[in-house]
Amino acid sequence: MSKKRIAILGAGPSGLAQLRAFEAARLAGAKNLPEIVCYEKQNAIGGMWNYSWRTGLDRNGEPVHGSMYRYLWSNGPKECLEFADYSFDEHFGEPIPSYPPREVLKDYIMGRIDKQDIQKYIRFECPVRWVSFDDETQKFTVTVMNHKTDEQEVEEFDYVVVATGHFSTPNMPYFEGLEAFPGRILHAHDFRDALEFKDEDILLIGSSYSAEDIGTQCYKYGTKSVTISYRTQALGYDWPDGIKEVPLVTHFEDDVAHFADGTSQSFDAIIMCTGYLFHFPFMPDELRLQTHNCLYPANLYKGIFWQPNPKLIYLGMQDQYFTFNMFDAQAWYARDVMLGDIELPDLATREADEQKWLATYAKCVTVSDSIDFQAAYIRDLTNGTDYPEFAVEEQGEILKEWQKDKAENIMTFREKAYRSTLTGTLSPELPEPWLDILDDSLEHFLNLTFVKPKKRKKAS
Amino acid sequence: MSKKRIAILGAGPSGLAQLRAFEAARLAGAKNLPEIVCYEKQNAIGGMWNYSWRTGLDRNGEPVHGSMYRYLWSNGPKECLEFADYSFDEHFGEPIPSYPPREVLKDYIMGRIDKQDIQKYIRFECPVRWVSFDDETQKFTVTVMNHKTDEQEVEEFDYVVVATGHFSTPNMPYFEGLEAFPGRILHAHDFRDALEFKDEDILLIGSSYSAEDIGTQCYKYGTKSVTISYRTQALGYDWPDGIKEVPLVTHFEDDVAHFADGTSQSFDAIIMCTGYLFHFPFMPDELRLQTHNCLYPANLYKGIFWQPNPKLIYLGMQDQYFTFNMFDAQAWYARDVMLGDIELPDLATREADEQKWLATYAKCVTVSDSIDFQAAYIRDLTNGTDYPEFAVEEQGEILKEWQKDKAENIMTFREKAYRSTLTGTLSPELPEPWLDILDDSLEHFLNLTFVKPKKRKKAS
Repeated sequence: MSKKRIAILGAGPSGLAQLRAFEAARLAGAKNLPEIVCYEKQNAIGGMWNYSWRTGLDRNGEPVHGSMYRYLWSNGPKECLEFADYSFDEHFGEPIPSYPPREVLKDYIMGRIDKQDIQKYIRFECPVRWVSFDDETQKFTVTVMNHKTDEQEVEEFDYVVVATGHFSTPNMPYFEGLEAFPGRILHAHDFRDALEFKDEDILLIGSSYSAEDIGTQCYKYGTKSVTISYRTQALGYDWPDGIKEVPLVTHFEDDVAHFADGTSQSFDAIIMCTGYLFHFPFMPDELRLQTHNCLYPANLYKGIFWQPNPKLIYLGMQDQYFTFNMFDAQAWYARDVMLGDIELPDLATREADEQKWLATYAKCVTVSDSIDFQAAYIRDLTNGTDYPEFAVEEQGEILKEWQKDKAENIMTFREKAYRSTLTGTLSPELPEPWLDILDDSLEHFLNLTFVKPKKRKKAS
Repeated sequence: MSKKRIAILGAGPSGLAQLRAFEAARLAGAKNLPEIVCYEKQNAIGGMWNYSWRTGLDRNGEPVHGSMYRYLWSNGPKECLEFADYSFDEHFGEPIPSYPPREVLKDYIMGRIDKQDIQKYIRFECPVRWVSFDDETQKFTVTVMNHKTDEQEVEEFDYVVVATGHFSTPNMPYFEGLEAFPGRILHAHDFRDALEFKDEDILLIGSSYSAEDIGTQCYKYGTKSVTISYRTQALGYDWPDGIKEVPLVTHFEDDVAHFADGTSQSFDAIIMCTGYLFHFPFMPDELRLQTHNCLYPANLYKGIFWQPNPKLIYLGMQDQYFTFNMFDAQAWYARDVMLGDIELPDLATREADEQKWLATYAKCVTVSDSIDFQAAYIRDLTNGTDYPEFAVEEQGEILKEWQKDKAENIMTFREKAYRSTLTGTLSPELPEPWLDILDDSLEHFLNLTFVKPKKRKKAS
């Protein structure tokens, strides 16, 4: 029997998790490992965690993948995204605070990969053009554009793993009068540097993570005022002077935004924090996931296997409380299916399983419910594989604390410290308020003298 | 015999020219007209001439087609882009100046289309996903994403006309240090409004149409200073205070650009006027035009028919002195081939013809040579069809005058007036300097009291 061939689309956190999962199997002595090709649009691994100064289209004319901006810090505790097979302690050699800046987190993600020679599987600057499946041969044909050679590559595969993410294609609504607004209008996806908005009055439309993070960051770096316009519900934090929330924009007149409560204000710039679209321009309809950002996208068995054709695997398509470790849990499970170590049940059984999860999900009301739901989902996956234990339920409790920390003070929650469920290490604290640490570079951060925590935070 | 089926990709100036060409044949009583489907990514006709406040990706997550910006005026005399079958006089009912603003020109383009019921052929919000050709059936399969239904459409065609333009996908080079520049960096493609740069020191990199037009426009609308950095040759105009030219950037340090002559300066924003890529992500290699911006792209017979498979037609892929009327000349010729009224010679003959043109093109040295070359190319096309006579050589002489006008004064050349080669109408002059007319709307422009020209400009 010839080797199975597997295409992984994307070398961000999910794609890398899949590569790492196979590498772990190889190191454990697994036989009959498949031949793997990972196609990556960018010229580096890391997906969303790469910072690019580019916006819109990249140097090859492809849509820029990254939504990353300068000065971004993790908005959740690192204790809830720790790889179960590669701890923060192992990577950094000493404890670091619970909320690291981007470059530090990226260094950690890369660390696990660099340790092993798995970049050899990746073909860079190769966006996928088209995927098709042949019912007769039961093979996928994947066509990619290799921008390094300016030639396309067409290859056949037994499995396709889609790991292209879903925070790259902006959802950009229209409001009356936008076409005449005499200032900059951009989506959070194209936000790069808070300093571009120094001394300006800016309007953020939307009230989820992008709005709270970009809003607080612009405040930190000297924006004159931040106004957050929400559709259904205000974020409701106890904002400092200089940040406020207003109802949804009804329309614009010149540089003036009018809001649903009858108030109005003029602005220098508008940043749309209005979320992202699931976008798979390389997928024919019969293989294309159509969903919105939620914890259990329909039509996927175990949240990953395309129901009509489970040789097609989608990783990381969930909304995320858990991130890197959830991708790992998915990738390990997908690996075992591709290796034949787990046999998938028939379609009826798969669909019944999906319905069971969807029914549970439908009962989630609070954020706590949602965290518990995602923890249970991950537990279900890790139960089936040899992915190391990482106490996902305990991490769920940390996520609930995180919710409280944010509610308590959105400007200081990053100063809290948590204990790793893997190593037991309690994170040190930042030596100064997050608002005062303007240099977010890895070098500066790791040279800070972290403070031993005064009181131990319990997760449950 | 069943009707031939033709797919036109794009409803901008070239695609509309193709639709109009078939409509002209229908009105002239042609039999056995094909079935036509025109797929358009945007939600309106006009292609590049639509202004959109969006940058990067559009509301469907597709790359924004338009590179159009507010306050853009034609940068060449309208007498050299007049449709031979629809004059400016016919559209506006009275003479207008030689250099109209965008909205006025767009109104003219639309006028010819609106007169006829040809929008019915167009499927809007339908970007093309993939095109393939079957050697056995001799048919193309075109897959498009219909964003209105969120479903793909797959149809077969006898001919495919690619009219998707080549000024939509930015060419964006990297310079050392750009990733740390603490201000906005954008490509001309994403430039929308000069007011966004009011009171700023801006750096434009590049020295072609985008740089001269965006530079003069930013000057007009109150930018503090404009610095144009050229690679090989300065534009060399007699710039007013506030605009200057410098050699190429070598690198950036923070907000400071260093130039090849050893000078340096700090900037608030960088606009890359570095041209565009030919980008056909929906085309397999065997059908994909690979070229750069020039007057005679290789591998196209008559500048339009794909040599290896002339059922594939590319319109408007040339660099352009002539524009709308050249697209018409191409579309009429392509139409007659598709209708069977013109029979294409065999491949060897087609390639010999291409080589002849390429050899002539290689001898072009001056701008005048290039203008003559493109006029001869258009004449060659119109000789073969019933497209109305429009004195292309005479228009070429106007283009040479235009070159002189620009060299004389880049800030005032739009105040010159030319005579239509179609109607004989001499354009009136602007009532005030172009620099003083800040409102570029159609309404404002057509309400100006144009000035009867004092002296008649001769074209030759």
